[in-house]
Amino acid sequence: MDNKLLEKYAQFTVKTAVNVQKGQTLLVNCPIEAAFFARLCTKAAYEAGAKEVVVNYNDEQINRLKMEHTELDVLCDIKPWILESYMNYYEKEDGCCMLSILARDPEIYKGLDAAKVGKSMQEKSKALKPWHDLVMGGKIPWSIAAIPTEKWAAKIFGENDKDKIEKLWQAIFDVCRVSGGDPVAQWEIHVEKLHACRNFLNESRFSALHLKSANGTDVIIGLPENHLWGGAREISTTGIPYLPNVPTEEVFTAPHSHNVNGTVKSSMPYVYNGNLIEGISVRLKDGLVVEYSAEKGNELLEQMFIADEGAKRLGEIALVPANNPIRKTGLLFYNTLFDENAACHIAFGASYPDTIENGASMTVEERKEKGMNDSLIHEDIMIGTEDMDIDGINADGSKTALFRNGNWVDGLF
Amino acid sequence: MDNKLLEKYAQFTVKTAVNVQKGQTLLVNCPIEAAFFARLCTKAAYEAGAKEVVVNYNDEQINRLKMEHTELDVLCDIKPWILESYMNYYEKEDGCCMLSILARDPEIYKGLDAAKVGKSMQEKSKALKPWHDLVMGGKIPWSIAAIPTEKWAAKIFGENDKDKIEKLWQAIFDVCRVSGGDPVAQWEIHVEKLHACRNFLNESRFSALHLKSANGTDVIIGLPENHLWGGAREISTTGIPYLPNVPTEEVFTAPHSHNVNGTVKSSMPYVYNGNLIEGISVRLKDGLVVEYSAEKGNELLEQMFIADEGAKRLGEIALVPANNPIRKTGLLFYNTLFDENAACHIAFGASYPDTIENGASMTVEERKEKGMNDSLIHEDIMIGTEDMDIDGINADGSKTALFRNGNWVDGLF
Repeated sequence: MDNKLLEKYAQFTVKTAVNVQKGQTLLVNCPIEAAFFARLCTKAAYEAGAKEVVVNYNDEQINRLKMEHTELDVLCDIKPWILESYMNYYEKEDGCCMLSILARDPEIYKGLDAAKVGKSMQEKSKALKPWHDLVMGGKIPWSIAAIPTEKWAAKIFGENDKDKIEKLWQAIFDVCRVSGGDPVAQWEIHVEKLHACRNFLNESRFSALHLKSANGTDVIIGLPENHLWGGAREISTTGIPYLPNVPTEEVFTAPHSHNVNGTVKSSMPYVYNGNLIEGISVRLKDGLVVEYSAEKGNELLEQMFIADEGAKRLGEIALVPANNPIRKTGLLFYNTLFDENAACHIAFGASYPDTIENGASMTVEERKEKGMNDSLIHEDIMIGTEDMDIDGINADGSKTALFRNGNWVDGLF
Repeated sequence: MDNKLLEKYAQFTVKTAVNVQKGQTLLVNCPIEAAFFARLCTKAAYEAGAKEVVVNYNDEQINRLKMEHTELDVLCDIKPWILESYMNYYEKEDGCCMLSILARDPEIYKGLDAAKVGKSMQEKSKALKPWHDLVMGGKIPWSIAAIPTEKWAAKIFGENDKDKIEKLWQAIFDVCRVSGGDPVAQWEIHVEKLHACRNFLNESRFSALHLKSANGTDVIIGLPENHLWGGAREISTTGIPYLPNVPTEEVFTAPHSHNVNGTVKSSMPYVYNGNLIEGISVRLKDGLVVEYSAEKGNELLEQMFIADEGAKRLGEIALVPANNPIRKTGLLFYNTLFDENAACHIAFGASYPDTIENGASMTVEERKEKGMNDSLIHEDIMIGTEDMDIDGINADGSKTALFRNGNWVDGLF
């Protein structure tokens, strides 16, 4: 790949997306294949004045061997040091920040016992919940950056495409707005646009959204009182701005966990625990999944829904217009970070605490009373299509057209 | 490299050297460059019935960046999770075993502040001491396996040798007895030979050794009463045999920490904390270093000796005949695992608990009373030469010739 773009990508990731502050500890999760990028990010973080950079490497192939050969009870015995390898660095709010580097094989767990994989992943999430709560509560600025791997590029462009890695780099640089000159300036413009969009929605105070597509999606998603739309830039509890997702094209909020009715159909394959689920159809009643099926990977869907009580309710609704740069690549990325930004999506599982007013300072129970969902999982399912219509339902029952044919209605904001 | 030999090397490492038992957890420390080998070893361990394989990756380049840019107090603030990432797996004696994969740049810390590097390494050793005590106390079977890196191969064969990696693989396979057919059978023969040698020394019960070379080494090394010679195969506290060092050509015991007098000269460069020390000369009086110098890296030597009280006393004397396969390669490996097995050596710092009768069940203080040394460091300095003569001094003052011109006297055992 172009080394100058790579350097720019690392600089942007650390200094703008994570926005590492002087004196902070940066925790980096990194697959070994992306070590060259972890090193660039580490240098950038020290340049930015980081106190310390702690890189934790992982290896999907070792994880697969472990998943295959280790008994379930051992897989579920998550040792305390794993949580502590994060918590030991959390000395105060914003004392540390986190970067997760993604370089995946979308089907790393293909062929393995889905129940075993699902259960052990859930136990790990459970063990790490105190950390995730800090991250989701805005106390730890964070971001994600993706790096091509052979397997990932092969899944997108085909095994035999000898330029597949190069093509994936180009796609990543393009949709992350790194290739077109100054990424910082480009992101300023992009963030402003998304913020205009979320401000409009926050001012509109819809009580529900109605999503409808020719493929069968027809659902009314109630929104909690005092819900807040987020998107693009987040602000930590002590005021540090950061971009949790790069790329990002969405604005999102929390559905009311007990007030969603209708049917949703997935419009893109979903990678769940290193396996593909395709052709998902789910019917919800009073917020709860009452019927579901998948053309491919139905047993995975089942695993997902049995995680806990909240797994069968929604935690997020995100609006993404079809005319976005990710969809324009014409690629299916087989990676949620990208694919969720190509289309409107819903997430089963936990809602983000800050998608309701003062949510970050409420307890889980307080948030649940307001209609927010809690769960160990948060799994995004893409439902947006090029013909999707979305209406905002106002408190008085009247409707405001938001999307027509997959895109924002002109002149809304 | 030859894939069949590589596979054989991994199988030998896991099943013979570490000797992983059914139901054990194998902890693997691995530089990211050697991930392919960690994966082979992980497979071999599961084949052998391991309960779980936990691979902890490290990255020298990240470590160098950290050493360079992180303040000393932060470097010395070793977080509790680092010790716990080992101790969490120690549920009972021999419940886990350990493999350290080495793939180093011999001069990774070249040019950095030696005092800072030394101090932070010592703090890490201090934090990990409870684990090292278990390992050294025979409660955790372990071994080491080396893997070539570009930088390491370049240091040995020169930057411009395009076959350097291939040559280093061949050298490793050769001296580890992997290339010549069945490594398990070859090691049986080799271990028997080293055991004959250590049995002879254990029966001889010398009170001291006198080492003398034309280069200026002339030292009398007292041995504690009830000292024991070890070498090649070790036996864990519950009876599992393992080969801690591969390759190994030495038999070794503990010097009396207060009864060493004379001068020792290093005969090979020594890699200390990612830097080279050469031309070491040390004078000892009553076991204590009273004078020292190095032609290159004198400041590193100083760092080494100020680690703690025990750093200026000896913890090991190892006998290695000059006609060994490592020396025969004619290579300087710039890696202690190899170079220490090319020549007789002494170590400054901790002695091995099991180099005295019942040592493993004594406290540190009890061992110190017997003349054993305690320290955070254990640094091997090669002193053997091709003209070295060694005499064993018997209790009655008479002498037994052990080495003449660098090799064991014929017909001794």
